[in-house]
Amino acid sequence: MPPQPANPPPAPDFDSMLSRKFGPEVANYFSGSPLNRVAFLRHEHGFLSQAVRHPSTRFLLCNDLQPLTRGDTPGRLAYVEHGAVQGVIGTDPYSVLEKEMLAQYDSGAYVPQMVFLGIDERAQAGERLEFQGKNLYKGAPYFAVDVTPRLSVKEACESLVKKLGEEGFSFAKGRVMDVEAKDAAIYAESRQLLDWNARNPFCAQCGQPTLSVNGGFKRTCPPSDLARLSSPSAALPTTGAAPTNPSDRPPCATRLGVSNLSFPRTDPTVIMAVVNHAGDRLLLGRQRRWPPFWYSTLAGFAEPAESIEEAVRREVYEESGVLVGRVVIHSTQPWPYPANLMIGAIGQAVPGDGEVIDLGNDPELDDAKWFSFEEVREALRVGTSGLGEEAGAEYREGGLRLPPSTAIAHQLMVSVCNGFVSGVPKM
Amino acid sequence: MPPQPANPPPAPDFDSMLSRKFGPEVANYFSGSPLNRVAFLRHEHGFLSQAVRHPSTRFLLCNDLQPLTRGDTPGRLAYVEHGAVQGVIGTDPYSVLEKEMLAQYDSGAYVPQMVFLGIDERAQAGERLEFQGKNLYKGAPYFAVDVTPRLSVKEACESLVKKLGEEGFSFAKGRVMDVEAKDAAIYAESRQLLDWNARNPFCAQCGQPTLSVNGGFKRTCPPSDLARLSSPSAALPTTGAAPTNPSDRPPCATRLGVSNLSFPRTDPTVIMAVVNHAGDRLLLGRQRRWPPFWYSTLAGFAEPAESIEEAVRREVYEESGVLVGRVVIHSTQPWPYPANLMIGAIGQAVPGDGEVIDLGNDPELDDAKWFSFEEVREALRVGTSGLGEEAGAEYREGGLRLPPSTAIAHQLMVSVCNGFVSGVPKM
Repeated sequence: MPPQPANPPPAPDFDSMLSRKFGPEVANYFSGSPLNRVAFLRHEHGFLSQAVRHPSTRFLLCNDLQPLTRGDTPGRLAYVEHGAVQGVIGTDPYSVLEKEMLAQYDSGAYVPQMVFLGIDERAQAGERLEFQGKNLYKGAPYFAVDVTPRLSVKEACESLVKKLGEEGFSFAKGRVMDVEAKDAAIYAESRQLLDWNARNPFCAQCGQPTLSVNGGFKRTCPPSDLARLSSPSAALPTTGAAPTNPSDRPPCATRLGVSNLSFPRTDPTVIMAVVNHAGDRLLLGRQRRWPPFWYSTLAGFAEPAESIEEAVRREVYEESGVLVGRVVIHSTQPWPYPANLMIGAIGQAVPGDGEVIDLGNDPELDDAKWFSFEEVREALRVGTSGLGEEAGAEYREGGLRLPPSTAIAHQLMVSVCNGFVSGVPKM
Repeated sequence: MPPQPANPPPAPDFDSMLSRKFGPEVANYFSGSPLNRVAFLRHEHGFLSQAVRHPSTRFLLCNDLQPLTRGDTPGRLAYVEHGAVQGVIGTDPYSVLEKEMLAQYDSGAYVPQMVFLGIDERAQAGERLEFQGKNLYKGAPYFAVDVTPRLSVKEACESLVKKLGEEGFSFAKGRVMDVEAKDAAIYAESRQLLDWNARNPFCAQCGQPTLSVNGGFKRTCPPSDLARLSSPSAALPTTGAAPTNPSDRPPCATRLGVSNLSFPRTDPTVIMAVVNHAGDRLLLGRQRRWPPFWYSTLAGFAEPAESIEEAVRREVYEESGVLVGRVVIHSTQPWPYPANLMIGAIGQAVPGDGEVIDLGNDPELDDAKWFSFEEVREALRVGTSGLGEEAGAEYREGGLRLPPSTAIAHQLMVSVCNGFVSGVPKM
């Protein structure tokens, strides 16, 4: 029997008043990670250094953001051990403290991006890493590594990719929506962090190159850069006195006080099932590039300084002209393409003119329509699939088509069809 | 009687099934803007050009991010007309199309930041702007303008600030939490956008200076920069063939395809009232820098690639050791210091060991404790205030102190004390 982990990733408990009142929680695809991120250990190179070299440690390799897979159906990610990736990352990329890494920063040196993902506390005693921090942490560490062949690691990555191919592994193609749920959550974390680091090599405050720290969860703007020594004009101070050290860089506001610039971004997005006032129809829309008869719930980015409830009302008004009253948030879904947090809501239209569809304000949609719950129920039964896939065998041309169960849009429609809006106590 | 606006900002409708089932929506401070943002008009300089010069238009001036106020209690923002701000922004900053602005981009020229906030559709006929786009839009336009005295507008801003002071207006000091709710929402939009533009003058992808476009809601990385003409070394191409034009800049990935880099960021944050399994106690924590006896709900940033429900469980585990089961999202609050979206949730602890408090994992809190609902109810009655303020007259030293009603933490506690977790139908 596996021993009880000391710090189990908190698991939903459905024997609670909240569950009895609101029902069990909807866990959407890309959420439900089996890893405890132990975020508070990310800055401890003593921990990361042990973790990266431990025999229980697993590395998810990503080539141009696509994960290594085992090539089976349903999909499973392939994880490799330290020995396999050592030629790319070196024996121990965390042998030097973060402070020393900063002091030795050289923007001219390419370092393949790594992300510390967390520990899997289901790993058994004797096989797992045990680390004594403030508490004792036990589990198998997980890392993501960018093995895209480029610059100083071009040859090492190319030969690794070739070897893995010969062993029957391959990097996924297109959107990864067919791996099992726990792997999907681990990939989501890997992809979003690798992508964010790749998109943000420069400081948006001062324009100078930045350095990835904190296990891949922060980038910092170092005060000096050895690359400046070989570029005398860049080493000239832009303001104030001459620098003590010729590698010193001009000042940057991110080095003082609190700043969010060096943290990964996550863009809150609203996605909403809008029900008419009578509570028997659902508003769905379609984009021009979708297959014929395919519809989904409306969605859009939340804007700065608005609540999610306001964002739902604004987006529905902009895209369909429909006016929404009460909004209830249903569940959320991480969406790592590239960095969205989908916040799923159910809203109800105000009666009368509020239900009239007008695509004129922001002509983003090809069409928007009210569908009866019956029609949506039938489509959920026979007409769902991935965007590039065929609908099921029972589907008849001309019938409504809808997204698959891995999409939060699908889950919102299921909830509405299962009585989310009805069920008001009569007295 | 004021005429009915053509496109009213959708107003919550509380005569709906969702309202009857879930109760009326909690609208938190900094949300509830009276403006229709008409986001789809932001790129139309034809519209912005009319809007900026219209007699109904109102400008919110911000000096070092602080808004102009009228100096009365409770606070009200002061808005000025076009004539007052013309010396800073010029007659019409939108006289040139966005395309031409890009072609003429000169990173050496300082342009005071402006933000188009939206239109107030409550403005009366004859007084409001009417603009025929895809539909007819009618209202009083609102803009925010950065009047911080610097660079080319230093003198103009200084003399404007002096003149406004002589007229009895002043710029707010500290956090703006005491202006009436609709003004607070307008200020939140202004502050978050002005701050984001100020923090992001450089492209994080390529390190070159960027240009504010889309009414202040995007920054773009222009393909050329007239400032390069006076800096011959910078004009040298870094890769590929010699540029056709000496002002051409090196390529940047943000100019191709879709990229979120040039959009404002909003950081999703979780804040949660955690109830014990029996449903009669609330978990609260305190930070070291808070006044004695002051507690609030736990909170923290959501991380990349996790659902809000997961973020709630992770943060509560990290900060207090408590394990949370079911999570329900309650309401949300924009928080423009600098760019947070507070997502308020109510969670319930798993029984037994799950309720044991352990501050050891991430020692961020000075203390965390379970408080009975009775104690919280009493503190909501006598012990709430702003952080720097005194508690009410009935408060007795040693009793629990809590944040004011403008904080979503307060609203979460009110909901819990009003029976959010109880009220399960008995059969």
